[in-house]
Amino acid sequence: MDELLEQLVEECRGCTSQGKVATYIPELAKANPEELGIYVLQSDGRHCQAGAYQKRFTIQSVVKPILLLLALMDNGEDYVRARVGVEATGKPFDAINMTDQTLFSDHINPMVNMGAIAMCTLIKGSSYEERFQRLLELTRKLAGDPEIRLDEAVYLSEKRTGNKNRALAYLLKTYGMIEDEVEEVLDCYFKACSISVNSKDLAHIAFVLANRGRLPQTDERVFSRRYAHYVNAILMTCGMYDGSGDFAVNVGVPAKSGVGGGIMAVVPTRMGIGIYGPSLDEKGNSVAGIQVLKGLSERMYLSIF
Amino acid sequence: MDELLEQLVEECRGCTSQGKVATYIPELAKANPEELGIYVLQSDGRHCQAGAYQKRFTIQSVVKPILLLLALMDNGEDYVRARVGVEATGKPFDAINMTDQTLFSDHINPMVNMGAIAMCTLIKGSSYEERFQRLLELTRKLAGDPEIRLDEAVYLSEKRTGNKNRALAYLLKTYGMIEDEVEEVLDCYFKACSISVNSKDLAHIAFVLANRGRLPQTDERVFSRRYAHYVNAILMTCGMYDGSGDFAVNVGVPAKSGVGGGIMAVVPTRMGIGIYGPSLDEKGNSVAGIQVLKGLSERMYLSIF
Amino acid sequence: MDELLEQLVEECRGCTSQGKVATYIPELAKANPEELGIYVLQSDGRHCQAGAYQKRFTIQSVVKPILLLLALMDNGEDYVRARVGVEATGKPFDAINMTDQTLFSDHINPMVNMGAIAMCTLIKGSSYEERFQRLLELTRKLAGDPEIRLDEAVYLSEKRTGNKNRALAYLLKTYGMIEDEVEEVLDCYFKACSISVNSKDLAHIAFVLANRGRLPQTDERVFSRRYAHYVNAILMTCGMYDGSGDFAVNVGVPAKSGVGGGIMAVVPTRMGIGIYGPSLDEKGNSVAGIQVLKGLSERMYLSIF
Amino acid sequence: MDELLEQLVEECRGCTSQGKVATYIPELAKANPEELGIYVLQSDGRHCQAGAYQKRFTIQSVVKPILLLLALMDNGEDYVRARVGVEATGKPFDAINMTDQTLFSDHINPMVNMGAIAMCTLIKGSSYEERFQRLLELTRKLAGDPEIRLDEAVYLSEKRTGNKNRALAYLLKTYGMIEDEVEEVLDCYFKACSISVNSKDLAHIAFVLANRGRLPQTDERVFSRRYAHYVNAILMTCGMYDGSGDFAVNVGVPAKSGVGGGIMAVVPTRMGIGIYGPSLDEKGNSVAGIQVLKGLSERMYLSIF
Repeated sequence: MDELLEQLVEECRGCTSQGKVATYIPELAKANPEELGIYVLQSDGRHCQAGAYQKRFTIQSVVKPILLLLALMDNGEDYVRARVGVEATGKPFDAINMTDQTLFSDHINPMVNMGAIAMCTLIKGSSYEERFQRLLELTRKLAGDPEIRLDEAVYLSEKRTGNKNRALAYLLKTYGMIEDEVEEVLDCYFKACSISVNSKDLAHIAFVLANRGRLPQTDERVFSRRYAHYVNAILMTCGMYDGSGDFAVNVGVPAKSGVGGGIMAVVPTRMGIGIYGPSLDEKGNSVAGIQVLKGLSERMYLSIF
Repeated sequence: MDELLEQLVEECRGCTSQGKVATYIPELAKANPEELGIYVLQSDGRHCQAGAYQKRFTIQSVVKPILLLLALMDNGEDYVRARVGVEATGKPFDAINMTDQTLFSDHINPMVNMGAIAMCTLIKGSSYEERFQRLLELTRKLAGDPEIRLDEAVYLSEKRTGNKNRALAYLLKTYGMIEDEVEEVLDCYFKACSISVNSKDLAHIAFVLANRGRLPQTDERVFSRRYAHYVNAILMTCGMYDGSGDFAVNVGVPAKSGVGGGIMAVVPTRMGIGIYGPSLDEKGNSVAGIQVLKGLSERMYLSIF
Repeated sequence: MDELLEQLVEECRGCTSQGKVATYIPELAKANPEELGIYVLQSDGRHCQAGAYQKRFTIQSVVKPILLLLALMDNGEDYVRARVGVEATGKPFDAINMTDQTLFSDHINPMVNMGAIAMCTLIKGSSYEERFQRLLELTRKLAGDPEIRLDEAVYLSEKRTGNKNRALAYLLKTYGMIEDEVEEVLDCYFKACSISVNSKDLAHIAFVLANRGRLPQTDERVFSRRYAHYVNAILMTCGMYDGSGDFAVNVGVPAKSGVGGGIMAVVPTRMGIGIYGPSLDEKGNSVAGIQVLKGLSERMYLSIF
Repeated sequence: MDELLEQLVEECRGCTSQGKVATYIPELAKANPEELGIYVLQSDGRHCQAGAYQKRFTIQSVVKPILLLLALMDNGEDYVRARVGVEATGKPFDAINMTDQTLFSDHINPMVNMGAIAMCTLIKGSSYEERFQRLLELTRKLAGDPEIRLDEAVYLSEKRTGNKNRALAYLLKTYGMIEDEVEEVLDCYFKACSISVNSKDLAHIAFVLANRGRLPQTDERVFSRRYAHYVNAILMTCGMYDGSGDFAVNVGVPAKSGVGGGIMAVVPTRMGIGIYGPSLDEKGNSVAGIQVLKGLSERMYLSIF
């Protein structure tokens, strides 16, 4: 299988030229668009990898399922579902999905920015710094990597330029979905997006979701089977933004992408996959990452459909 | 398992009072809201059933995946994908998903009305009557039921009152997605929606999708594994209209509902399920049908996530 | 003043190259984009003209205020206002101004297509042919031109290609704003748009609106002062589609444009103006016509603001 | 005429019960809904008044035309028009008028919040405090009232609760229409809205617009005839929010309302009118104020149409 991964990485590297690295956050623009890496962790304990799988990058939107998990673990499903919906928005990641003059909780989704910002207010902590630390701890635990830390430069860059997210957060505040200070909530959100990970980390986190809540090796349960179903289902319907439908058809597994170039793909009961490929298509998904996953899905019959 | 089905039907019959039967087509308003039936066909050949599983009703939107299948079989995936998109619209079944003054094929989806009407123009036939007959034949074959026929009364009722669908079709015509006469295309669509089936039929059709294109018993291949992936993936992301997200979280299998009260649920590799329960929630899905499927999914671990 | 008009026509003819003739109806595409004509009728009885003022063209949307007038004359203001709103839509002429799944009468406007189609159902007549004949009679009377007639070729062209209008009409039917047969209503609407007029006719019609309901020469009252206020006010806020704001700022008088190249401008108490210039800007307004009116307004202080 | 005003105020006071005072800013909720006052200044120098015409209230959105005037005076028409559009939005005052993911300057209007916030960045000053002081000076000059000052309590109340405006401002920042610090721009905007005026002040400001830029008495020119046309035209098409169409039909003069209960109405060449009536309809316009203006327009033939 190492060989298959090497081969896919070689085949797909070419298509990195069809996309481009994110530039809306100045720090992200520094990425090398040609890099591509993959790490796969299987349920029998084997792991394999190819390319730039050790390269660190910021997690960006791939943190959204972890935020959702922590919100579920802290509050239970009913509480979370009542505050943030689960339907696909049919719109880009930073869309304002408002019906005329009102914002309904059913219309915000934890996998797009507005829902993820709302999620920050649901996780527990006496301060937003503490909330972020708890999120960071959970990320380290799921990834089995105590080295995971905040990328200060990206965080400061996001904080300085994140005006669309500020607009979204003030809309949430306007309609009663944020009670705390908007800048504090956003600070937690910008930090969450700026956690630095590598493909191996994403593969491990994906594995726990594929393994319905249990860590590899120790088999320790971190969250319930029910929460795995909840998160994986949302990843399937909305994890790849407005490219989720094509991804479901062509790859057929729950996944989440981020503008840092990461993709985390969950193959229920079978494997966790982490990808790094910072050249993005117009929807914000890793161009080469999707190609690698498509090839892997075809050759290893990964589609759950 | 018969016992489990009986029990679920009993438990869920109560919630039929939370919904109501469709009234926008006069013929549908005649249904008995308290009826509830289920039929399950498993991969080992066993089948079980409970309640009004023999009751005939019109297939309505559950015909959409069959239309999509026939379009794929007639034209191949690339041709179909270029003309009708696969993203969730995030909107109700009869929504007009236009961006300002333009309609993009990527914004129409085969599981909502506009996309399904476009699908009628893709299936082959020298006339729209012939196209409908080919669809009817495929439906009979997938269901293994040569008795399936058109419900003339519902068809005429739809034809007379289907003005929203006319509006959608004329928009498709305006933007070049329909070349033929709108009324002929609609005639085929209204007939397609008025095919009369029962829960057993839906279970058989779902089984072929679960079995990736092969019929039960004979194991004859009707369509490719690839098309099963294609259709099942779209059912997962958009099969239950703007209730698809909750259904994915709570039941976790590809499914399609219709305003006639039917639900067809596909449990890949394992089973096909057909439901009849004409009392609908506000999104147009069978209230009790969803409850039965939720119960069955929990007790039999059906979620593919 | 004849001299001023000649001069303006010469000055503005150049800008016809900035636009293009309408092509969505095949017959309209045959117009000569460089033609430009103007006719002015003043309250003291003088009239002056320049350029192609005798050229006949189809009235298109300039018929909308006449439809509105006839609806008011037939039903009174309250009845009409309850069925068709008066607010600017902020959208193009053929926009679908729906709030989610509902269409409110307050959101349709008599100066855009949906509202004008609804208006056809409000005017009286035992058949839609009779309704059209009554509209034609009123147009002839206001223009003082018994020669005005239907352009059959344009009418048939519109009827054959008017699918967007069919879509709009079926939406009106869906939401109860049309009770009669859609094709009959549309037939009346397509005929109304295909009335053949010249700039002189438009100037006379505009004059009656400027003169608050009285014909020139005879001073015969055709409609009440109140209806003149009603129609002129709507022309000011929405007569030039989504270019109404710029027109109000730059010209400052009520006006209505049509894709046939006509503009009818009303200078209350002072004059009626008719323009022909078939080269249109992207909003569907005559490019040169607006320039001529701007020049005339500046030099003769026409702005009512 | 004093008698006519007294009579209209008496007649219309009853309809104050059909509306309610604004509550979204806590300070505004303290107003007495039954108060009603009017002040009229005519071109022959006469003035008349009735009811609570001396009552001070915050100017709120009635400041928007003054902001627009100052932006025009500071930068010229071309500069302002290139940055803020003039079309009616067809939407409520605090609507987000975005086309998908982009915000076009042509889609923001100086009479709704987003455009008015953008206007604050166009007026000149070395600080936003200075910009506000210049606006305050212009307001005093137009009103001929050096007593006009900021209502600190309302300003602080707006600043504390104005989250929707913060969202709008961050959207403007996102799309490059604000370069300065959002909170500084908003501070100027909140102060602008909190200027305390009375009906007499509004009548005087309206008079200068009606008099095309010249003060009463001295006849000193404060701004050009052209800017009066520009501002009055926009007041006509969008000054009464999404009630502008009905107001144009029923009253027929340029006007601007504010949620503080004020209305400023401009009768070109004839008079300036100021109204105070804090009971608002659902669109945010003074219920009784509109009734008084309607009565006055009918009896004194004020409609410019």
